[in-house]
Amino acid sequence: MPVHKRGRDDVDTIEDGPFPKDPSRVIAISDGVFAVALTLLILDVKPPTVSQALLASAIIGTAPRLGIFALSFAIVAYYWVSHHFSFGYVRLIDRGLLWLNMLFLFTIVVLPFSAAVLADYPLAAPAITLYGANVAACSATLAIAWWYAVGKGLSINVRREERRRVAVRTMISPTLALVGIAVATIAPVASLVLFVAIPVASYTLKPTR
Amino acid sequence: MPVHKRGRDDVDTIEDGPFPKDPSRVIAISDGVFAVALTLLILDVKPPTVSQALLASAIIGTAPRLGIFALSFAIVAYYWVSHHFSFGYVRLIDRGLLWLNMLFLFTIVVLPFSAAVLADYPLAAPAITLYGANVAACSATLAIAWWYAVGKGLSINVRREERRRVAVRTMISPTLALVGIAVATIAPVASLVLFVAIPVASYTLKPTR
Amino acid sequence: MPVHKRGRDDVDTIEDGPFPKDPSRVIAISDGVFAVALTLLILDVKPPTVSQALLASAIIGTAPRLGIFALSFAIVAYYWVSHHFSFGYVRLIDRGLLWLNMLFLFTIVVLPFSAAVLADYPLAAPAITLYGANVAACSATLAIAWWYAVGKGLSINVRREERRRVAVRTMISPTLALVGIAVATIAPVASLVLFVAIPVASYTLKPTR
Amino acid sequence: MPVHKRGRDDVDTIEDGPFPKDPSRVIAISDGVFAVALTLLILDVKPPTVSQALLASAIIGTAPRLGIFALSFAIVAYYWVSHHFSFGYVRLIDRGLLWLNMLFLFTIVVLPFSAAVLADYPLAAPAITLYGANVAACSATLAIAWWYAVGKGLSINVRREERRRVAVRTMISPTLALVGIAVATIAPVASLVLFVAIPVASYTLKPTR
Repeated sequence: MPVHKRGRDDVDTIEDGPFPKDPSRVIAISDGVFAVALTLLILDVKPPTVSQALLASAIIGTAPRLGIFALSFAIVAYYWVSHHFSFGYVRLIDRGLLWLNMLFLFTIVVLPFSAAVLADYPLAAPAITLYGANVAACSATLAIAWWYAVGKGLSINVRREERRRVAVRTMISPTLALVGIAVATIAPVASLVLFVAIPVASYTLKPTR
Repeated sequence: MPVHKRGRDDVDTIEDGPFPKDPSRVIAISDGVFAVALTLLILDVKPPTVSQALLASAIIGTAPRLGIFALSFAIVAYYWVSHHFSFGYVRLIDRGLLWLNMLFLFTIVVLPFSAAVLADYPLAAPAITLYGANVAACSATLAIAWWYAVGKGLSINVRREERRRVAVRTMISPTLALVGIAVATIAPVASLVLFVAIPVASYTLKPTR
Repeated sequence: MPVHKRGRDDVDTIEDGPFPKDPSRVIAISDGVFAVALTLLILDVKPPTVSQALLASAIIGTAPRLGIFALSFAIVAYYWVSHHFSFGYVRLIDRGLLWLNMLFLFTIVVLPFSAAVLADYPLAAPAITLYGANVAACSATLAIAWWYAVGKGLSINVRREERRRVAVRTMISPTLALVGIAVATIAPVASLVLFVAIPVASYTLKPTR
Repeated sequence: MPVHKRGRDDVDTIEDGPFPKDPSRVIAISDGVFAVALTLLILDVKPPTVSQALLASAIIGTAPRLGIFALSFAIVAYYWVSHHFSFGYVRLIDRGLLWLNMLFLFTIVVLPFSAAVLADYPLAAPAITLYGANVAACSATLAIAWWYAVGKGLSINVRREERRRVAVRTMISPTLALVGIAVATIAPVASLVLFVAIPVASYTLKPTR
């Protein structure tokens, strides 16, 4: 891979084409999409429109919706942390990885929609299924992007034991999401608890060792 | 072009004026606009407001709208990839290129509007025409910016054969968009298929060789 | 802490794991969230819908709402300045700091909601309490993140006297917010004045000496 | 000014305090606010809701609103170009410049509101006055920030003749805006033409010589 660096610029070009490139703009667009997604979620929590006498209880009444918002914020934040972690390994971008990252961002951008549906119907199985499927899709697309990068030699060298560890960790959030879907009709509250467990598990489990 | 670099700063100033500059802020504002445009598109997919019994079918009923959203996301993503690719050649920015890039970003920012119209009237010729014209305008403005940069010597040296290749590739997406417009009244579904083909073609065709 | 730098990339990896990292992406996502939050606030100021004859007075009638918007803009700007100041000390990020920063960003993202409620009920005690509590939560989470960074050795060396000065300064905005809440039922205008004092105090007080 | 650089980080700290700093984060937050403001403007152009037979004429009927949107996009773009130009001179940031920049960004963020009012009442004097006052405020705050930076020695050395040139140029857009306000009651179309002239003048006039 004859990399031909030009000055202090952000883009490397190999001799025969525009790829692979350095990942700086891929990370910039990803951070931008995450920043907007994190902030857009609140638009779904509407201020109450009641008489002033009822305002206190109306504000307290927004708590469940704020709770779903907090859950979704935590899940989007979790995927940002995962993306940060995963792309910490990536050194070069090719067209495949560019589009796999876009596929992942697509699943992130759909989350505000799934979260709005869940906020409207917090205990309904179809809403829980949509939300869980969306979360599972986020995990799946990010995992595919990471394994693609490692398999294509676009990442730093990842040792065998580290790969195994990542593979195990990668299974956690889609498993929680799918179990959440599975129990949605019989125990919707348990589904929500499982969704809450996704970012919590990310924080609790050490990423290595 | 007597470039007078000062330390590690992002801005070069030549002796007689503020231009040409290094493109870092142009790329930053472009990535920001793309990130917001990619994420705003979902705001047009509203959660259903039905009784809980009808929720499952109502969620399935949002599929066409989600499909238009996915198409628009893919097209905006495609233009981001194209911008990334094109500005990978650019080394300096002058006022002309600054404003041509803004013209391109304008066509990108209009896309959520065109997408919303298309989502409301997916098989109506005027909606398809608006959408196709918008896509063609995105391609045209980006192409003008690129040729301007190459012609004005603001890019790295681009070999003749590479220019020809880029010229051919540049024709693909506006051609698909215009054919899509042309057949809108007789075969609107074919128009949508042609629009879907724009990002797909981008992925399928190798950018070089 | 055996840091193993690779080329000019943004991510450092120590030998045994992915943390600590350099803070560039944490700062990028934070700036992105702040940028969106600062701009979203205006969406709550709706243009008037009156006959043209009444337009002038209707525009003047939006002044109180614009005032709440200006206050919220100043407060979000104040927290951005504080974040800029605080993370000027930070040299490395671990998982704890990553999530504490996300907790802080969560409190920032809720501010447009609290501001919308306050704009609807500017003199109602529950709205003032919500707003004040939100502001106090912003200050508290940012302070926790800063002390965590200093305590864990993720910051540059901070001298004892500087720590004391930061501790005193850190108390100002939550104190103003809590006093604002305390007087909300008897003197709501005083509460608003105290909220206005938060960014003003930040500007007036010298950050050091 | 004993600057104490630490490694490859973005923040310089002088020995006695956290300021002056390098302007990278100020530019990042500014680009972010501009990116969101540029993209939010389109939210005010609503897709038509008519029968399919009337769609073509309804789309054409959105042209005036799209025109106001295009004008506002061009004006925000113009201020981004001006900010890019002005901060190309800035080398250091102190607290005053930090907050003057925030004041400028405040005037930018209000523009989508003024644009929405103008789009609803394109020929009404109060709407034109609001819009023109907003534009004049953008110019004034940016000019104050620039002169502050030059006066406080936070910029590169600006020669006397260049200062005079900037002073002249700085007067153009507020003058156009104020004349636009002045003729609003007698010739509202002329006001709009003067507003259109602001970004056009920026492009036409050479920034130097």
